[in-house]
Amino acid sequence: MTQLLEMIKFDQLVSMRDRGLAYGHGVFETMEVYEGELPHWPRHWKRLSTGCRRLGLPTPNGEELYGALINNIPLAGRFVLKLIITAGDSHRGYASPSIMKPRYLMATQTWPEYPVTHAEKGVTVRICETCLPFDPLLAGIKHLNRLHQVLARNEWNDKKVVEGLMLDPKNRVIEGTMSNLFWVEKDKLYTPDLSLCGVSGIMRERIIEWCKSERLSVHLGEITPGKLLESDGLFICNSIIGIWPVNCLDNHKMPIPNLVRILLKAQRKGTV
Amino acid sequence: MTQLLEMIKFDQLVSMRDRGLAYGHGVFETMEVYEGELPHWPRHWKRLSTGCRRLGLPTPNGEELYGALINNIPLAGRFVLKLIITAGDSHRGYASPSIMKPRYLMATQTWPEYPVTHAEKGVTVRICETCLPFDPLLAGIKHLNRLHQVLARNEWNDKKVVEGLMLDPKNRVIEGTMSNLFWVEKDKLYTPDLSLCGVSGIMRERIIEWCKSERLSVHLGEITPGKLLESDGLFICNSIIGIWPVNCLDNHKMPIPNLVRILLKAQRKGTV
Repeated sequence: MTQLLEMIKFDQLVSMRDRGLAYGHGVFETMEVYEGELPHWPRHWKRLSTGCRRLGLPTPNGEELYGALINNIPLAGRFVLKLIITAGDSHRGYASPSIMKPRYLMATQTWPEYPVTHAEKGVTVRICETCLPFDPLLAGIKHLNRLHQVLARNEWNDKKVVEGLMLDPKNRVIEGTMSNLFWVEKDKLYTPDLSLCGVSGIMRERIIEWCKSERLSVHLGEITPGKLLESDGLFICNSIIGIWPVNCLDNHKMPIPNLVRILLKAQRKGTV
Repeated sequence: MTQLLEMIKFDQLVSMRDRGLAYGHGVFETMEVYEGELPHWPRHWKRLSTGCRRLGLPTPNGEELYGALINNIPLAGRFVLKLIITAGDSHRGYASPSIMKPRYLMATQTWPEYPVTHAEKGVTVRICETCLPFDPLLAGIKHLNRLHQVLARNEWNDKKVVEGLMLDPKNRVIEGTMSNLFWVEKDKLYTPDLSLCGVSGIMRERIIEWCKSERLSVHLGEITPGKLLESDGLFICNSIIGIWPVNCLDNHKMPIPNLVRILLKAQRKGTV
Protein backbone atom coordinates (compact mmCIF):
# COMPACT_ATOMS: atom_id res chain seq x y z
CA MET A 1 0.00 0.00 0.00
CA THR A 2 2.86 2.36 0.78
CA GLN A 3 4.07 1.66 -2.71
CA LEU A 4 0.74 2.67 -4.21
CA LEU A 5 0.63 5.83 -2.14
CA GLU A 6 3.99 6.82 -3.49
CA MET A 7 2.70 6.66 -7.01
CA ILE A 8 -0.45 8.74 -6.64
CA LYS A 9 -0.03 11.69 -4.33
CA PHE A 10 -2.81 14.04 -3.45
CA ASP A 11 -2.13 17.75 -3.63
CA GLN A 12 -3.87 20.25 -1.41
CA LEU A 13 -3.47 23.40 -3.45
CA VAL A 14 -3.08 24.51 -7.04
CA SER A 15 -1.61 27.63 -8.65
CA MET A 16 -2.73 29.69 -11.65
CA ARG A 17 -0.72 27.35 -13.82
CA ASP A 18 -2.96 24.40 -13.02
CA ARG A 19 -5.12 23.70 -16.06
CA GLY A 20 -8.02 22.72 -13.81
CA LEU A 21 -8.18 26.25 -12.46
CA ALA A 22 -7.18 28.04 -15.67
CA TYR A 23 -9.49 26.17 -18.06
CA GLY A 24 -11.51 23.63 -16.11
CA HIS A 25 -9.31 20.99 -17.75
CA GLY A 26 -10.12 18.10 -15.45
CA VAL A 27 -12.79 15.78 -14.06
CA PHE A 28 -14.27 15.06 -10.65
CA GLU A 29 -16.33 12.53 -8.75
CA THR A 30 -18.39 12.84 -5.59
CA MET A 31 -18.57 9.43 -3.93
CA GLU A 32 -19.99 7.68 -0.92
CA VAL A 33 -17.46 6.45 1.62
CA TYR A 34 -18.85 3.73 3.89
CA GLU A 35 -16.88 1.86 6.57
CA GLY A 36 -13.57 2.53 4.87
CA GLU A 37 -14.76 1.54 1.41
CA LEU A 38 -16.07 3.15 -1.76
CA PRO A 39 -19.09 0.93 -2.46
CA HIS A 40 -19.69 2.20 -5.98
CA TRP A 41 -16.09 2.68 -7.08
CA PRO A 42 -16.31 0.62 -10.32
CA ARG A 43 -19.03 2.93 -11.69
CA HIS A 44 -17.24 6.11 -10.59
CA TRP A 45 -14.01 4.79 -12.01
CA LYS A 46 -15.65 4.06 -15.34
CA ARG A 47 -17.00 7.61 -15.68
CA LEU A 48 -13.73 9.09 -14.41
CA SER A 49 -11.61 7.19 -16.90
CA THR A 50 -14.02 7.99 -19.73
CA GLY A 51 -13.72 11.67 -18.76
CA CYS A 52 -9.91 11.49 -18.69
CA ARG A 53 -9.84 9.95 -22.15
CA ARG A 54 -12.32 12.48 -23.52
CA LEU A 55 -10.25 15.40 -22.18
CA GLY A 56 -6.89 13.96 -23.21
CA LEU A 57 -5.68 13.28 -19.67
CA PRO A 58 -3.57 10.18 -19.11
CA THR A 59 -5.82 7.65 -17.41
CA PRO A 60 -4.42 6.61 -14.05
CA ASN A 61 -4.20 2.96 -13.10
CA GLY A 62 -7.61 2.29 -11.54
CA GLU A 63 -6.32 -0.06 -8.87
CA GLU A 64 -3.56 2.30 -7.84
CA LEU A 65 -5.98 5.17 -7.62
CA TYR A 66 -8.43 3.09 -5.60
CA GLY A 67 -5.62 2.04 -3.25
CA ALA A 68 -4.47 5.61 -2.80
CA LEU A 69 -8.03 6.79 -2.06
CA ILE A 70 -8.72 3.96 0.38
CA ASN A 71 -5.56 4.88 2.27
CA ASN A 72 -6.82 8.40 2.79
CA ILE A 73 -10.39 7.86 3.92
CA PRO A 74 -11.73 7.23 7.42
CA LEU A 75 -12.01 3.55 8.39
CA ALA A 76 -15.41 3.87 10.00
CA GLY A 77 -18.55 5.86 9.30
CA ARG A 78 -20.17 7.41 6.26
CA PHE A 79 -18.61 10.29 4.37
CA VAL A 80 -18.64 12.11 1.06
CA LEU A 81 -15.41 11.89 -0.89
CA LYS A 82 -14.68 14.41 -3.61
CA LEU A 83 -11.89 13.60 -6.03
CA ILE A 84 -10.62 16.06 -8.64
CA ILE A 85 -8.14 15.10 -11.34
CA THR A 86 -6.76 18.08 -13.27
CA ALA A 87 -4.50 18.12 -16.31
CA GLY A 88 -1.76 19.54 -14.07
CA ASP A 89 0.40 22.57 -14.69
CA SER A 90 1.26 24.11 -18.03
CA HIS A 91 2.54 27.29 -19.56
CA ARG A 92 0.18 29.92 -20.93
CA GLY A 93 -1.95 28.64 -23.79
CA TYR A 94 -4.63 26.03 -24.37
CA ALA A 95 -2.30 23.36 -25.77
CA SER A 96 -1.69 20.54 -23.32
CA PRO A 97 1.98 20.08 -22.42
CA SER A 98 3.70 17.25 -24.30
CA ILE A 99 4.20 15.43 -21.00
CA MET A 100 1.10 15.89 -18.91
CA LYS A 101 1.39 15.33 -15.19
CA PRO A 102 -2.16 15.10 -13.82
CA ARG A 103 -2.84 16.49 -10.38
CA TYR A 104 -4.95 14.59 -7.85
CA LEU A 105 -6.92 16.35 -5.15
CA MET A 106 -9.24 14.72 -2.64
CA ALA A 107 -11.26 15.76 0.37
CA THR A 108 -13.71 13.95 2.62
CA GLN A 109 -16.67 15.55 4.33
CA THR A 110 -19.21 14.25 6.79
CA TRP A 111 -22.22 12.60 5.19
CA PRO A 112 -25.01 15.20 4.94
CA GLU A 113 -28.09 14.53 7.05
CA TYR A 114 -31.05 15.45 4.86
CA PRO A 115 -34.57 15.42 6.34
CA VAL A 116 -36.01 11.90 6.06
CA THR A 117 -39.21 13.44 4.69
CA HIS A 118 -37.30 14.28 1.48
CA ALA A 119 -37.28 10.60 0.53
CA GLU A 120 -40.55 9.69 2.23
CA LYS A 121 -42.84 12.53 1.25
CA GLY A 122 -41.02 14.20 -1.57
CA VAL A 123 -39.44 17.56 -2.29
CA THR A 124 -40.18 20.84 -4.03
CA VAL A 125 -38.47 21.39 -7.36
CA ARG A 126 -38.50 24.22 -9.88
CA ILE A 127 -37.73 24.62 -13.57
CA CYS A 128 -34.67 26.75 -14.28
CA GLU A 129 -34.30 29.38 -16.96
CA THR A 130 -30.61 28.63 -17.48
CA CYS A 131 -30.41 26.10 -20.30
CA LEU A 132 -27.85 23.40 -20.94
CA PRO A 133 -26.29 23.93 -24.37
CA PHE A 134 -26.08 21.01 -26.79
CA ASP A 135 -22.56 19.82 -26.28
CA PRO A 136 -22.08 16.19 -27.35
CA LEU A 137 -18.29 16.38 -26.85
CA LEU A 138 -18.67 16.99 -23.13
CA ALA A 139 -22.01 15.27 -22.52
CA GLY A 140 -22.09 12.46 -19.97
CA ILE A 141 -18.76 13.09 -18.26
CA LYS A 142 -18.23 15.02 -15.04
CA HIS A 143 -15.78 17.74 -16.07
CA LEU A 144 -14.84 20.94 -14.28
CA ASN A 145 -16.74 23.34 -16.61
CA ARG A 146 -19.83 23.72 -14.48
CA LEU A 147 -20.95 27.32 -15.02
CA HIS A 148 -24.38 26.34 -16.31
CA GLN A 149 -25.09 24.43 -13.11
CA VAL A 150 -23.81 27.37 -11.04
CA LEU A 151 -25.98 29.87 -12.92
CA ALA A 152 -29.04 27.62 -12.73
CA ARG A 153 -28.57 26.93 -9.00
CA ASN A 154 -28.21 30.62 -8.28
CA GLU A 155 -31.59 31.40 -9.85
CA TRP A 156 -33.35 30.74 -6.54
CA ASN A 157 -32.80 31.33 -2.85
CA ASP A 158 -35.93 29.79 -1.38
CA LYS A 159 -34.73 27.00 0.93
CA LYS A 160 -37.95 25.04 0.41
CA VAL A 161 -36.92 24.47 -3.20
CA VAL A 162 -34.30 21.73 -3.12
CA GLU A 163 -33.50 21.40 -6.81
CA GLY A 164 -33.95 23.05 -10.20
CA LEU A 165 -34.50 21.16 -13.44
CA MET A 166 -32.61 22.28 -16.52
CA LEU A 167 -33.82 22.23 -20.12
CA ASP A 168 -31.96 21.81 -23.37
CA PRO A 169 -32.34 24.40 -26.16
CA LYS A 170 -35.30 22.42 -27.55
CA ASN A 171 -37.28 22.80 -24.30
CA ARG A 172 -36.71 19.23 -23.15
CA VAL A 173 -36.05 18.55 -19.48
CA ILE A 174 -32.58 16.97 -19.12
CA GLU A 175 -31.54 16.85 -15.47
CA GLY A 176 -31.34 18.78 -12.21
CA THR A 177 -28.43 21.07 -11.36
CA MET A 178 -26.97 18.30 -9.12
CA SER A 179 -29.17 15.31 -9.91
CA ASN A 180 -30.65 13.16 -12.64
CA LEU A 181 -34.32 12.82 -13.39
CA PHE A 182 -36.82 9.98 -13.90
CA TRP A 183 -40.51 10.25 -14.54
CA VAL A 184 -43.46 7.86 -14.77
CA GLU A 185 -46.10 7.75 -17.49
CA LYS A 186 -48.65 4.95 -17.59
CA ASP A 187 -46.62 2.70 -15.29
CA LYS A 188 -43.51 3.10 -17.39
CA LEU A 189 -40.31 4.66 -16.11
CA TYR A 190 -38.46 7.18 -18.27
CA THR A 191 -35.22 9.11 -18.02
CA PRO A 192 -33.82 11.68 -20.47
CA ASP A 193 -31.27 10.75 -23.10
CA LEU A 194 -27.94 12.35 -22.16
CA SER A 195 -26.07 12.07 -25.43
CA LEU A 196 -26.28 15.81 -26.24
CA CYS A 197 -26.01 17.30 -22.75
CA GLY A 198 -26.16 16.35 -19.09
CA VAL A 199 -24.11 14.23 -16.71
CA SER A 200 -24.45 10.48 -16.74
CA GLY A 201 -25.15 9.97 -13.04
CA ILE A 202 -24.01 6.96 -11.04
CA MET A 203 -27.32 6.73 -9.12
CA ARG A 204 -29.21 6.98 -12.42
CA GLU A 205 -27.15 4.04 -13.70
CA ARG A 206 -27.75 2.04 -10.53
CA ILE A 207 -31.50 2.62 -10.82
CA ILE A 208 -31.55 1.57 -14.47
CA GLU A 209 -29.68 -1.63 -13.66
CA TRP A 210 -31.81 -2.43 -10.63
CA CYS A 211 -34.95 -1.99 -12.75
CA LYS A 212 -33.51 -4.32 -15.39
CA SER A 213 -32.72 -6.93 -12.73
CA GLU A 214 -36.30 -6.64 -11.49
CA ARG A 215 -37.64 -6.83 -15.05
CA LEU A 216 -39.00 -3.32 -14.79
CA SER A 217 -38.35 -1.54 -18.06
CA VAL A 218 -36.76 1.92 -18.16
CA HIS A 219 -36.99 3.95 -21.36
CA LEU A 220 -34.97 6.86 -22.67
CA GLY A 221 -37.54 9.57 -23.27
CA GLU A 222 -38.05 13.21 -24.18
CA ILE A 223 -40.26 15.47 -22.13
CA THR A 224 -41.12 19.15 -22.02
CA PRO A 225 -41.82 20.92 -18.71
CA GLY A 226 -45.53 21.05 -19.62
CA LYS A 227 -45.72 17.30 -20.21
CA LEU A 228 -43.72 16.65 -17.04
CA LEU A 229 -46.42 18.47 -15.06
CA GLU A 230 -49.01 16.18 -16.66
CA SER A 231 -46.97 13.01 -15.98
CA ASP A 232 -47.82 10.48 -13.26
CA GLY A 233 -44.88 11.65 -11.17
CA LEU A 234 -41.13 12.12 -11.10
CA PHE A 235 -38.07 11.82 -8.91
CA ILE A 236 -34.55 13.14 -8.77
CA CYS A 237 -31.49 11.15 -7.74
CA ASN A 238 -27.77 11.29 -7.15
CA SER A 239 -25.11 9.33 -5.26
CA ILE A 240 -25.49 11.40 -2.10
CA ILE A 241 -29.21 12.17 -1.85
CA GLY A 242 -30.30 8.78 -3.21
CA ILE A 243 -33.87 9.01 -4.54
CA TRP A 244 -36.14 11.93 -3.75
CA PRO A 245 -39.66 11.94 -5.21
CA VAL A 246 -40.91 15.34 -6.36
CA ASN A 247 -44.17 16.33 -4.67
CA CYS A 248 -44.24 19.86 -6.01
CA LEU A 249 -42.97 21.01 -9.40
CA ASP A 250 -43.07 24.70 -10.27
CA ASN A 251 -45.89 25.22 -7.71
CA HIS A 252 -47.96 22.27 -8.97
CA LYS A 253 -48.62 19.36 -6.64
CA MET A 254 -47.32 16.11 -8.08
CA PRO A 255 -48.38 12.55 -7.18
CA ILE A 256 -45.88 9.90 -6.07
CA PRO A 257 -46.60 6.89 -8.28
CA ASN A 258 -46.39 3.29 -7.09
CA LEU A 259 -43.36 2.60 -9.22
CA VAL A 260 -41.47 5.29 -7.30
CA ARG A 261 -42.61 3.84 -3.97
CA ILE A 262 -41.22 0.47 -5.04
CA LEU A 263 -37.89 2.12 -5.81
CA LEU A 264 -37.89 3.97 -2.50
CA LYS A 265 -38.49 0.69 -0.69
CA ALA A 266 -35.59 -0.94 -2.54
CA GLN A 267 -33.45 2.05 -1.61
CA ARG A 268 -34.34 1.67 2.08
CA LYS A 269 -33.35 -1.98 1.86
CA GLY A 270 -30.10 -0.98 0.21
CA THR A 271 -30.70 -3.09 -2.87
CA VAL A 272 -30.67 -0.31 -5.51
CA MET B 1 -1.48 52.91 -2.62
CA THR B 2 -0.69 50.82 0.46
CA GLN B 3 -4.31 51.29 1.40
CA LEU B 4 -5.48 49.94 -1.94
CA LEU B 5 -3.18 46.94 -1.69
CA GLU B 6 -4.68 46.09 1.65
CA MET B 7 -8.09 45.89 0.12
CA ILE B 8 -7.32 43.69 -2.88
CA LYS B 9 -4.83 40.98 -2.05
CA PHE B 10 -3.55 38.51 -4.57
CA ASP B 11 -3.49 34.87 -3.61
CA GLN B 12 -0.98 32.44 -5.01
CA LEU B 13 -2.81 29.18 -4.49
CA VAL B 14 -6.32 27.81 -4.26
CA SER B 15 -7.80 24.69 -2.66
CA MET B 16 -10.54 22.33 -3.82
CA ARG B 17 -13.04 24.60 -2.16
CA ASP B 18 -12.28 27.44 -4.57
CA ARG B 19 -15.19 27.76 -7.00
CA GLY B 20 -12.80 28.70 -9.80
CA LEU B 21 -11.18 25.28 -9.58
CA ALA B 22 -14.32 23.32 -8.66
CA TYR B 23 -16.65 24.82 -11.29
CA GLY B 24 -14.76 27.37 -13.36
CA HIS B 25 -16.75 30.00 -11.49
CA GLY B 26 -14.63 33.01 -12.37
CA VAL B 27 -13.20 35.21 -15.10
CA PHE B 28 -9.75 36.08 -16.39
CA GLU B 29 -7.88 38.61 -18.51
CA THR B 30 -4.56 38.39 -20.31
CA MET B 31 -3.16 41.91 -20.64
CA GLU B 32 -0.18 43.77 -21.99
CA VAL B 33 2.07 45.38 -19.37
CA TYR B 34 4.22 48.16 -20.82
CA GLU B 35 6.59 50.35 -18.82
CA GLY B 36 4.71 49.80 -15.59
CA GLU B 37 1.28 50.45 -17.09
CA LEU B 38 -1.64 48.51 -18.49
CA PRO B 39 -2.26 50.42 -21.72
CA HIS B 40 -5.63 48.85 -22.47
CA TRP B 41 -6.95 48.54 -18.93
CA PRO B 42 -10.31 50.31 -19.52
CA ARG B 43 -11.31 47.73 -22.13
CA HIS B 44 -10.12 44.77 -20.06
CA TRP B 45 -11.88 46.21 -17.04
CA LYS B 46 -15.11 46.55 -18.96
CA ARG B 47 -15.08 42.90 -20.05
CA LEU B 48 -13.96 41.76 -16.60
CA SER B 49 -16.75 43.61 -14.80
CA THR B 50 -19.32 42.42 -17.34
CA GLY B 51 -18.10 38.88 -16.68
CA CYS B 52 -18.35 39.32 -12.91
CA ARG B 53 -21.91 40.59 -13.21
CA ARG B 54 -22.90 37.77 -15.56
CA LEU B 55 -21.51 35.14 -13.18
CA GLY B 56 -22.89 36.72 -10.02
CA LEU B 57 -19.50 37.78 -8.62
CA PRO B 58 -19.35 41.06 -6.72
CA THR B 59 -17.67 43.54 -9.05
CA PRO B 60 -14.51 44.93 -7.51
CA ASN B 61 -13.84 48.65 -7.50
CA GLY B 62 -12.08 49.20 -10.83
CA GLU B 63 -9.69 51.85 -9.56
CA GLU B 64 -8.70 49.80 -6.55
CA LEU B 65 -8.10 46.76 -8.71
CA TYR B 66 -6.06 48.82 -11.17
CA GLY B 67 -4.01 50.26 -8.29
CA ALA B 68 -3.38 46.81 -6.84
CA LEU B 69 -2.28 45.45 -10.21
CA ILE B 70 0.00 48.40 -10.96
CA ASN B 71 1.71 47.87 -7.61
CA ASN B 72 2.56 44.31 -8.54
CA ILE B 73 3.91 44.67 -12.08
CA PRO B 74 7.45 45.48 -13.21
CA LEU B 75 8.16 49.19 -13.71
CA ALA B 76 10.05 48.77 -16.96
CA GLY B 77 9.72 46.49 -19.97
CA ARG B 78 6.95 44.59 -21.66
CA PHE B 79 5.17 41.69 -20.02
CA VAL B 80 2.01 39.61 -20.15
CA LEU B 81 -0.19 39.92 -17.09
CA LYS B 82 -2.77 37.25 -16.35
CA LEU B 83 -5.44 38.08 -13.82
CA ILE B 84 -7.96 35.52 -12.54
CA ILE B 85 -10.90 36.44 -10.34
CA THR B 86 -12.70 33.42 -8.88
CA ALA B 87 -15.90 33.32 -6.83
CA GLY B 88 -13.78 32.30 -3.83
CA ASP B 89 -14.34 29.38 -1.49
CA SER B 90 -17.61 27.66 -0.75
CA HIS B 91 -18.97 24.44 0.66
CA ARG B 92 -19.96 21.55 -1.59
CA GLY B 93 -22.74 22.44 -4.01
CA TYR B 94 -23.31 24.80 -6.90
CA ALA B 95 -25.10 27.52 -4.90
CA SER B 96 -22.90 30.56 -4.34
CA PRO B 97 -22.31 31.36 -0.66
CA SER B 98 -24.52 34.14 0.69
CA ILE B 99 -21.42 36.25 1.28
CA MET B 100 -19.08 35.73 -1.61
CA LYS B 101 -15.44 36.61 -1.12
CA PRO B 102 -13.83 36.67 -4.56
CA ARG B 103 -10.26 35.52 -4.89
CA TYR B 104 -7.72 37.45 -6.97
CA LEU B 105 -4.74 35.78 -8.57
CA MET B 106 -2.19 37.42 -10.84
CA ALA B 107 1.04 36.47 -12.56
CA THR B 108 3.34 38.27 -14.98
CA GLN B 109 5.37 36.58 -17.68
CA THR B 110 7.93 37.88 -20.15
CA TRP B 111 6.43 39.18 -23.39
CA PRO B 112 6.58 36.38 -25.98
CA GLU B 113 8.85 37.00 -28.97
CA TYR B 114 6.98 35.70 -31.99
CA PRO B 115 8.71 35.56 -35.39
CA VAL B 116 8.29 38.96 -37.13
CA THR B 117 7.27 37.08 -40.28
CA HIS B 118 4.00 36.13 -38.55
CA ALA B 119 2.79 39.72 -38.86
CA GLU B 120 4.65 40.52 -42.08
CA LYS B 121 4.08 37.45 -44.20
CA GLY B 122 1.23 35.70 -42.45
CA VAL B 123 0.65 32.42 -40.67
CA THR B 124 -0.78 28.97 -41.28
CA VAL B 125 -4.19 28.29 -39.75
CA ARG B 126 -6.49 25.28 -39.75
CA ILE B 127 -10.18 24.64 -39.19
CA CYS B 128 -10.97 22.69 -36.02
CA GLU B 129 -13.47 19.89 -35.65
CA THR B 130 -14.32 20.87 -32.07
CA CYS B 131 -17.33 23.18 -32.26
CA LEU B 132 -18.35 26.00 -29.97
CA PRO B 133 -21.84 25.32 -28.62
CA PHE B 134 -24.47 28.05 -28.83
CA ASP B 135 -24.32 29.54 -25.36
CA PRO B 136 -25.68 33.09 -25.25
CA LEU B 137 -25.45 33.23 -21.42
CA LEU B 138 -21.69 32.87 -21.50
CA ALA B 139 -20.95 34.40 -24.92
CA GLY B 140 -18.63 37.39 -25.03
CA ILE B 141 -17.12 37.12 -21.54
CA LYS B 142 -13.82 35.49 -20.65
CA HIS B 143 -14.82 32.89 -18.08
CA LEU B 144 -12.87 29.91 -16.76
CA ASN B 145 -14.88 27.22 -18.61
CA ARG B 146 -12.51 26.77 -21.51
CA LEU B 147 -12.69 23.08 -22.37
CA HIS B 148 -13.78 23.69 -25.96
CA GLN B 149 -10.70 25.78 -26.59
CA VAL B 150 -8.52 23.12 -24.94
CA LEU B 151 -10.03 20.32 -27.03
CA ALA B 152 -9.78 22.35 -30.23
CA ARG B 153 -6.16 23.37 -29.58
CA ASN B 154 -5.20 19.78 -28.87
CA GLU B 155 -6.44 18.64 -32.28
CA TRP B 156 -3.06 19.42 -33.86
CA ASN B 157 0.62 19.16 -33.00
CA ASP B 158 2.20 20.58 -36.15
CA LYS B 159 4.19 23.63 -35.00
CA LYS B 160 3.78 25.31 -38.40
CA VAL B 161 0.05 25.66 -37.68
CA VAL B 162 -0.27 28.60 -35.29
CA GLU B 163 -4.02 28.68 -34.78
CA GLY B 164 -7.23 26.74 -35.32
CA LEU B 165 -10.56 28.32 -36.24
CA MET B 166 -13.66 27.11 -34.47
CA LEU B 167 -17.16 26.79 -35.95
CA ASP B 168 -20.56 27.09 -34.36
CA PRO B 169 -23.11 24.27 -34.72
CA LYS B 170 -24.41 25.92 -37.93
CA ASN B 171 -21.01 25.63 -39.64
CA ARG B 172 -20.17 29.33 -39.27
CA VAL B 173 -16.62 30.33 -38.41
CA ILE B 174 -16.64 32.18 -35.07
CA GLU B 175 -13.09 32.67 -33.78
CA GLY B 176 -9.73 31.04 -33.19
CA THR B 177 -8.94 29.02 -30.06
CA MET B 178 -7.04 32.04 -28.67
CA SER B 179 -7.87 34.80 -31.15
CA ASN B 180 -10.62 36.62 -32.99
CA LEU B 181 -11.12 36.64 -36.72
CA PHE B 182 -11.66 39.24 -39.45
CA TRP B 183 -11.99 38.63 -43.18
CA VAL B 184 -12.15 40.78 -46.31
CA GLU B 185 -14.66 40.48 -49.10
CA LYS B 186 -14.79 43.07 -51.91
CA ASP B 187 -12.82 45.65 -49.90
CA LYS B 188 -15.12 45.29 -46.92
CA LEU B 189 -13.96 44.09 -43.52
CA TYR B 190 -16.08 41.54 -41.63
CA THR B 191 -15.92 39.89 -38.23
CA PRO B 192 -18.28 37.25 -36.80
CA ASP B 193 -21.15 38.17 -34.52
CA LEU B 194 -20.35 36.87 -31.02
CA SER B 195 -23.76 37.04 -29.41
CA LEU B 196 -24.28 33.25 -29.38
CA CYS B 197 -20.72 32.07 -28.75
CA GLY B 198 -17.14 33.28 -28.72
CA VAL B 199 -15.08 35.71 -26.68
CA SER B 200 -15.36 39.42 -27.32
CA GLY B 201 -11.67 40.16 -27.79
CA ILE B 202 -9.97 43.40 -26.75
CA MET B 203 -7.86 43.53 -29.93
CA ARG B 204 -10.96 42.89 -32.01
CA GLU B 205 -12.60 45.86 -30.29
CA ARG B 206 -9.55 48.07 -30.83
CA ILE B 207 -9.52 47.19 -34.54
CA ILE B 208 -13.23 47.93 -34.91
CA GLU B 209 -12.78 51.33 -33.24
CA TRP B 210 -9.68 52.20 -35.22
CA CYS B 211 -11.51 51.38 -38.45
CA LYS B 212 -14.42 53.58 -37.40
CA SER B 213 -12.03 56.44 -36.61
CA GLU B 214 -10.51 55.98 -40.08
CA ARG B 215 -13.96 55.79 -41.68
CA LEU B 216 -13.36 52.23 -42.73
CA SER B 217 -16.50 50.25 -42.15
CA VAL B 218 -16.48 46.92 -40.33
CA HIS B 219 -19.49 44.63 -40.62
CA LEU B 220 -20.74 41.79 -38.49
CA GLY B 221 -20.96 38.86 -40.88
CA GLU B 222 -21.54 35.13 -41.15
CA ILE B 223 -19.16 32.89 -43.04
CA THR B 224 -18.72 29.16 -43.59
CA PRO B 225 -15.24 27.61 -43.92
CA GLY B 226 -15.87 27.13 -47.65
CA LYS B 227 -16.70 30.79 -48.19
CA LEU B 228 -13.75 31.84 -46.04
CA LEU B 229 -11.44 29.99 -48.43
CA GLU B 230 -13.00 31.96 -51.31
CA SER B 231 -12.71 35.31 -49.47
CA ASP B 232 -10.13 37.97 -50.34
CA GLY B 233 -8.21 37.20 -47.16
CA LEU B 234 -8.37 37.01 -43.39
CA PHE B 235 -6.45 37.70 -40.22
CA ILE B 236 -6.48 36.65 -36.59
CA CYS B 237 -5.83 38.94 -33.65
CA ASN B 238 -5.51 39.13 -29.88
CA SER B 239 -3.97 41.41 -27.26
CA ILE B 240 -0.65 39.57 -27.23
CA ILE B 241 -0.09 38.57 -30.88
CA GLY B 242 -1.60 41.74 -32.32
CA ILE B 243 -2.64 41.15 -35.95
CA TRP B 244 -1.46 38.13 -37.93
CA PRO B 245 -2.64 37.75 -41.53
CA VAL B 246 -3.44 34.20 -42.59
CA ASN B 247 -1.44 33.11 -45.65
CA CYS B 248 -2.51 29.48 -45.53
CA LEU B 249 -5.89 28.18 -44.42
CA ASP B 250 -6.48 24.42 -44.28
CA ASN B 251 -3.68 23.90 -46.86
CA HIS B 252 -5.00 26.58 -49.24
CA LYS B 253 -2.85 29.62 -49.96
CA MET B 254 -4.63 32.83 -49.02
CA PRO B 255 -3.90 36.35 -50.28
CA ILE B 256 -3.18 39.25 -47.92
CA PRO B 257 -5.53 42.03 -49.05
CA ASN B 258 -4.62 45.73 -49.05
CA LEU B 259 -7.02 46.45 -46.24
CA VAL B 260 -5.07 44.08 -44.00
CA ARG B 261 -1.77 45.68 -45.04
CA ILE B 262 -3.19 49.07 -43.98
CA LEU B 263 -4.09 47.61 -40.59
CA LEU B 264 -0.66 46.02 -40.20
CA LYS B 265 0.94 49.39 -40.94
CA ALA B 266 -1.25 51.06 -38.32
CA GLN B 267 -0.27 48.32 -35.86
CA ARG B 268 3.45 48.93 -36.53
CA LYS B 269 2.89 52.62 -35.86
CA GLY B 270 1.07 51.73 -32.64
CA THR B 271 -2.11 53.55 -33.65
CA VAL B 272 -4.53 50.56 -33.56
